[in-house]
Amino acid sequence: MARILVLYNQPADPAAFDRYYFETHTPLALKIPGLQRLTVSDGPVTLLAGGAAPYLVAQLDFASMADLQAALASPEGQTTAGDLANFAQAGVTLLAMETKEPQA
Amino acid sequence: MARILVLYNQPADPAAFDRYYFETHTPLALKIPGLQRLTVSDGPVTLLAGGAAPYLVAQLDFASMADLQAALASPEGQTTAGDLANFAQAGVTLLAMETKEPQA
Repeated sequence: MARILVLYNQPADPAAFDRYYFETHTPLALKIPGLQRLTVSDGPVTLLAGGAAPYLVAQLDFASMADLQAALASPEGQTTAGDLANFAQAGVTLLAMETKEPQA
Repeated sequence: MARILVLYNQPADPAAFDRYYFETHTPLALKIPGLQRLTVSDGPVTLLAGGAAPYLVAQLDFASMADLQAALASPEGQTTAGDLANFAQAGVTLLAMETKEPQA
């Protein structure tokens, strides 16, 4: 499995951010080829320890790093990434990683 | 669904961190009651945009925020959290959130 994590900084206008994010950005993200699952934080992100809590966290899961890279390079991926400038002016951190599930 | 995200800063000794993380810390985490899935980054975490990449990312999924809070308060959760001081001296960010899965 491979995953993109998107951590959005606190926006100046949370209501406007939410509206754009769910009405415009999410539909673009859901068109990304190879996307298996989009998960988004629902309500406040609570900081249990460490520096600062992001305002919203999104997670995009893919079957493999090859699929993730193809998704980033696709027209739909490029459109989704380009759309960040339209609402994430407060800043965003994008991380990509392969994942595994340790078992007991 | 509810989720804990754990973002570990770059350790001074990555090999020692990995050894402790997978041999000692992960087995503790896997005992946390109500934990449905533990996912851990496998290999490097790549920064696609934004400030700084963590060294390792772990995700703990629970059925609900009530389950997550019970897990944090449990002896196993307290032991796992207390164990962070044994290997995450470079710093760690712990986030808790409810999640949803937007559909097209």
